[in-house]
Amino acid sequence: MASEDQLMHLVLIRHGESEWNKANLFTGWTDVELSENGVKEAQAGGRALKEAGYDFDVCYTSYLKRAIHTLNNVLDEMDRAWLPVVKTWKLNERHYGALQGWNKADTAAKYGEEQVKIWRRSYDVPPLALEPGDERDPHTQEMFRDVAMKDVLPYTECLKDTIARAWPYFQDEIAPELKAGKRVLIAAHGNSLRALVMKFDKLTPDEILNVNIPTAIPLSYTFDQDWNVVDKHYVGDPDMIAAKIQAVANQGKAKK
Amino acid sequence: MASEDQLMHLVLIRHGESEWNKANLFTGWTDVELSENGVKEAQAGGRALKEAGYDFDVCYTSYLKRAIHTLNNVLDEMDRAWLPVVKTWKLNERHYGALQGWNKADTAAKYGEEQVKIWRRSYDVPPLALEPGDERDPHTQEMFRDVAMKDVLPYTECLKDTIARAWPYFQDEIAPELKAGKRVLIAAHGNSLRALVMKFDKLTPDEILNVNIPTAIPLSYTFDQDWNVVDKHYVGDPDMIAAKIQAVANQGKAKK
Repeated sequence: MASEDQLMHLVLIRHGESEWNKANLFTGWTDVELSENGVKEAQAGGRALKEAGYDFDVCYTSYLKRAIHTLNNVLDEMDRAWLPVVKTWKLNERHYGALQGWNKADTAAKYGEEQVKIWRRSYDVPPLALEPGDERDPHTQEMFRDVAMKDVLPYTECLKDTIARAWPYFQDEIAPELKAGKRVLIAAHGNSLRALVMKFDKLTPDEILNVNIPTAIPLSYTFDQDWNVVDKHYVGDPDMIAAKIQAVANQGKAKK
Repeated sequence: MASEDQLMHLVLIRHGESEWNKANLFTGWTDVELSENGVKEAQAGGRALKEAGYDFDVCYTSYLKRAIHTLNNVLDEMDRAWLPVVKTWKLNERHYGALQGWNKADTAAKYGEEQVKIWRRSYDVPPLALEPGDERDPHTQEMFRDVAMKDVLPYTECLKDTIARAWPYFQDEIAPELKAGKRVLIAAHGNSLRALVMKFDKLTPDEILNVNIPTAIPLSYTFDQDWNVVDKHYVGDPDMIAAKIQAVANQGKAKK
């Protein structure tokens, strides 16, 4: 279907603000809802895509409602609610282990700023793990009941672990659709999208840790048939994009 | 996977009130949004399913946003946004031909009450067909661009035509899932659901024309492995169900 010189079109979008972003809690796989502001961000992302003439053939998202609802709002704004959507836990946010639900400031007070910084910003050191059987343990949650091999589900994850499940999913399930000429939209999370960006942009662990993808700003990638990036840009009003990139960079600094 | 005596579980739900239900316009495949009341109806349907202990493994809906959004609202209320959803035009509402977008009272004044009654209530006489190339022609609409064989798309439909596409879809795609033990939820439309109910309940054309499925009240079917109906009931508060069944019966009368 695709000719050898055909370009491949992919757009990534990180979910809008969630209720727990506002509350300064570690979220991870906790299934929290978009805030009212998060819904508006998602709608603006959808309008930006529509105004720029984007269209899609298939969409992917995680099992978490903040990503699913971001996608739904984008599709509604594009008048594309009828597009096929594939949901997978492989695109879930990084699992934040025992920290999920903890207040970020309280955790820093208890374990020290340095330790929390390592948990937040290390490539390969995961946060404290959940105890098996904890109510937050994905092995016991309804959401994961159809996962055939339960030992793949984590008790905690560092970014390296997130990449180790998100990237193979992309390679096995999404890449063939792009190769077949389909235009793909992925609505997911800061760290599952980092996994993809790291591979697309051929970044080192240090480099990807410094990449902060702004919320709900569509990030458009165009590849040649060898997966070279021939175009990469954020879609939308340039002033808003600049402000959001600045905000997410400041956020990263303030919380170190 | 399913043993011979295993029961099969299916729930049907008709979308809530749409903007055009309120405006008294013929809708058909016009992609109109749920009204505010329609959203509330869908949420109530979802809560009723949750409270009665229902759960699902896979969901089906049409390409039309009033059904998709009904399903989304049901799944949100059940905390099941992560369930797989399959969208298909084969579960769309009956295509209402050239009448789509026309006011029901104006149409009766122009063509006569008797003619409109035939178009609304005949099993095998379709309404006036669309002209090919009309902006309402599905052959030219983005929504149907991925339909491989365009000649299956209608210019108008009688109920018999709707059954002729919805029932084979059920047989080919949904029945095997039920046979495999999956619990299935279908969110669709008055006439595409009639197609299924006619077959499940072994009704004649005259009988199915007198069946009016109330909006957003989950209709639970349990089958044995030979597709005999061993249980059928509406799910929710009995008073509300009785009121809705009465309302839809009165609506049918008033509009004859």
